[in-house]
Amino acid sequence: MIASMQDHQLRVPQLLDHAARYHGDREIVTAWPDGSVTRITWATLANDARKMAQAFERLGIKPGDRVATLAMNHTPHLVAWFGAIGMGAIVHTLNPRLFDEQLIYTVNHAADRVLLYDCAFQQQVDRLRDRWPTIERFIRIDGDGPGSLLELLNVEDGECDWYGGDEREPSMLCYTSGTTGAPKGVLYTHRSTVLHAMAGVAPSMFDLSATSVVLPIVPLFHAAGWGLPFAAAIAGAKMVLCPTNEPTILSQTMTREHVTHSAGVPTVWLSLLAHADAANAFPRALRHVSIGGSAAPASMIARFEAAGVRVAHIWGMTETSPLGTMGQRPVGWALMDEAQKLSVASRQGKPPYGVELALVDDAGEPVTHDGVSPGRLRVRGPWVVHRYYAADADAVDDDGWFDTGDVAVMHPDGTMQITDRAKDMIKSGGEWISSVELENAAIGCAGVAEAAAIGAIHPKWGERPILLVVRRPGSTVTSDELRLHLQNHVAKWWLPDEVIFVEELPHTATGKLLKSALRDRYAKILIDG
Amino acid sequence: MIASMQDHQLRVPQLLDHAARYHGDREIVTAWPDGSVTRITWATLANDARKMAQAFERLGIKPGDRVATLAMNHTPHLVAWFGAIGMGAIVHTLNPRLFDEQLIYTVNHAADRVLLYDCAFQQQVDRLRDRWPTIERFIRIDGDGPGSLLELLNVEDGECDWYGGDEREPSMLCYTSGTTGAPKGVLYTHRSTVLHAMAGVAPSMFDLSATSVVLPIVPLFHAAGWGLPFAAAIAGAKMVLCPTNEPTILSQTMTREHVTHSAGVPTVWLSLLAHADAANAFPRALRHVSIGGSAAPASMIARFEAAGVRVAHIWGMTETSPLGTMGQRPVGWALMDEAQKLSVASRQGKPPYGVELALVDDAGEPVTHDGVSPGRLRVRGPWVVHRYYAADADAVDDDGWFDTGDVAVMHPDGTMQITDRAKDMIKSGGEWISSVELENAAIGCAGVAEAAAIGAIHPKWGERPILLVVRRPGSTVTSDELRLHLQNHVAKWWLPDEVIFVEELPHTATGKLLKSALRDRYAKILIDG
Repeated sequence: MIASMQDHQLRVPQLLDHAARYHGDREIVTAWPDGSVTRITWATLANDARKMAQAFERLGIKPGDRVATLAMNHTPHLVAWFGAIGMGAIVHTLNPRLFDEQLIYTVNHAADRVLLYDCAFQQQVDRLRDRWPTIERFIRIDGDGPGSLLELLNVEDGECDWYGGDEREPSMLCYTSGTTGAPKGVLYTHRSTVLHAMAGVAPSMFDLSATSVVLPIVPLFHAAGWGLPFAAAIAGAKMVLCPTNEPTILSQTMTREHVTHSAGVPTVWLSLLAHADAANAFPRALRHVSIGGSAAPASMIARFEAAGVRVAHIWGMTETSPLGTMGQRPVGWALMDEAQKLSVASRQGKPPYGVELALVDDAGEPVTHDGVSPGRLRVRGPWVVHRYYAADADAVDDDGWFDTGDVAVMHPDGTMQITDRAKDMIKSGGEWISSVELENAAIGCAGVAEAAAIGAIHPKWGERPILLVVRRPGSTVTSDELRLHLQNHVAKWWLPDEVIFVEELPHTATGKLLKSALRDRYAKILIDG
Repeated sequence: MIASMQDHQLRVPQLLDHAARYHGDREIVTAWPDGSVTRITWATLANDARKMAQAFERLGIKPGDRVATLAMNHTPHLVAWFGAIGMGAIVHTLNPRLFDEQLIYTVNHAADRVLLYDCAFQQQVDRLRDRWPTIERFIRIDGDGPGSLLELLNVEDGECDWYGGDEREPSMLCYTSGTTGAPKGVLYTHRSTVLHAMAGVAPSMFDLSATSVVLPIVPLFHAAGWGLPFAAAIAGAKMVLCPTNEPTILSQTMTREHVTHSAGVPTVWLSLLAHADAANAFPRALRHVSIGGSAAPASMIARFEAAGVRVAHIWGMTETSPLGTMGQRPVGWALMDEAQKLSVASRQGKPPYGVELALVDDAGEPVTHDGVSPGRLRVRGPWVVHRYYAADADAVDDDGWFDTGDVAVMHPDGTMQITDRAKDMIKSGGEWISSVELENAAIGCAGVAEAAAIGAIHPKWGERPILLVVRRPGSTVTSDELRLHLQNHVAKWWLPDEVIFVEELPHTATGKLLKSALRDRYAKILIDG
């Protein structure tokens, strides 16, 4: 068949070329923890990435090879990404918060040939170096001098073409954090990355254009920073990167750089908002905040809405690149009262074109979309995993559906709302209690900084909820006060059998509550006494 | 290679499914010329399109067959589109304003098997029926009763799957209007249509979301209505269709349906604005207007800006699906004065990701991007033509560039500005005069309804500009007044040697000035006297 339309491959480097050509002056800013700031532009980034591609070639890296990064959010990290992907290699983002055993496992499983790492992780690298036999070359990604990325770039001229392969070739390798079992690698392709980015800029998604200033608080090693560097390139947006989540620096940077768009998990927003309220330093230019990883408490949503910020849940996972759904302001939003707005904003939203959702019961039969009947959430689409890296079997069922492990309801208008992780639901007397809803209700209580609900084994009910609570500094909130508060927000039979105050709660490497550790410790508390 | 990510084909029917599933209640409204209004939803449209697909199958239509439409903008036209494309056929949109010979040529060239036509074109169909031997079946697309589309739908149940082919299979066939030579067919593919639609919803392009209400004034037979039905499906926007361009109906419909987004050629906007100003009936909800086909006069841009409407040039052609560039509000827009805003808004803008532009001189060498040096505009990308339908050779050069025939400058920031059609430039004493700039300056003069500048043969200068002018009703504007006005807007040597007042100007079937006819008539006026 003779092609009637031009048959360009959807490849990641062309995103960068687009930004460099048509939005070349828009900045990429890094606000370093020491207070210094570096500024380059998309045009410079494109040139540096070409030098990086030449440097990888000089090191003997071939298309298809894995290049690992162990780094926070900053410009050289992006240079490494685009340079490696641009010469056909696969970027494997390591999560520095993983345990040693997990870091050893993933590097060996991926058989990474090169590691680019932040100076701050020198100790970690020295400790694990001998356990990473596939890594031939260690490169310091920040700083300068011998062994640094800068040293490699300085001898290159940037005069090269991108590697031009098929759009279905791999671009990035991201491992799930894996609270249970070994981490699993999701191998993004150029096609999946580009389509995901094209979908991401839409007004109902990240809403990015060349006038946007986007600061992804989400680390670049979490599902490629939710794909924001690629969506920002399509939009030609200014990007602002912070290698730290320290609230003072984040908040100052947001104000100074006129950040309009940001994205991150609820725990980071909790501390940022606490700082902003204490210091009267709410970032004034902010108008779009995406919250993902887990559900945001209603109090947080209300705080953003009051400041005129459009707050949107993003739902997804490493396996979905990650954009699965985004919260949306429906028609009639302006006419809704605060409670209605809060109810709508607490939902996970609707998928972009490309993503399909299905809700099924335990037998795999469709669950009705009535806004109350929960079901297991399945997903499919061109940026959803088909088979994990080096796995023997597909990750999808015969109809191509991927089982997310999440429990959700679908509202009649096509809006999805996560109820809980399937494994975190609490089953009391044959009825389901959502641990997420219980936690978010608890966080709305004055004096509560963080809360975790788990099911504890109960002789009569099977499971009963218990609540682990971290108080805010200076707070003396009591178990009775908390119960009183909860009575106004959840059904009476959802009230926890125990409220336990703790100094801190355990988190996974991606900042989510590590419920498995809590269950290990507290599951038998109602029977052991 | 085992697919790591899911490998869904980018097919047009999935756009419709997406809208039906996640924005099923958003309306598709048709405001008929007789004042009646029909309303369906995306969910209903999807169901009707499935019935249409069944009906085509029942008629013996096979995937790859051409199905022609001769129809204005209305719901059944969309049903026919999605039904035909959904069962694998190719929709060939006929332009009812074409001359008989062109209609005969394109139908035979495409070898259409079915024609769906508006009752209003019954006479045209009857006249040409015998000249269209490939058409086996004539279906009235509006109305009901025997021989109507409705009759076909009524016996189907909509219980069918879409035809599932490769994304590079054709979806639509659109012929260029061809002011010179035979019309040429551009065969869009499912992939090109879907990617074009994904790019189109972005904030810097059509800016469409589920809260948008979009009325494409541009006819569906002009480059698939600029792809708006497909972009609207991705966004889940409400669509409003008018089979007529009558300003009163358009304006009333825009107001009643709270139209937020619209798109059309300057001539239609001229009459709509004239009506709105006379009747004090400017559509209040309007906030985004795309103007394409030819450059908008500064006076029109100023009128929209004053009303708080973001006005954006869209540049493109049938060969580019058509989205090539879109005018954009740059960073710092709010700080610009009116003249600066006008200057920026008069540019054709920047391309979405996917489209690349190149500016070359007559020798094919790159022209500098300084905002003043004109060059021939070339374009490439995944929704740009590669080879015309049934042509023997590619429409692109060895590097894949398509020569647009437009003359443009590129500004240093990557913004493109059309200067003229290459064939419409006036060459006076070796220097170029832009006919478009001269016309737009003339339209800014009170009393001028429309103007056309062409080069007339001149014994000394080679060519000199002459201006054909249509006065507004009641205006008595004189040649001297017009010259006085022009002196403030163009270089003195650009002033026309003759100003000729005419009752009307000839247009192509797509509403553009038919300059070839003017040149035929007036080219020798300066030498013949």
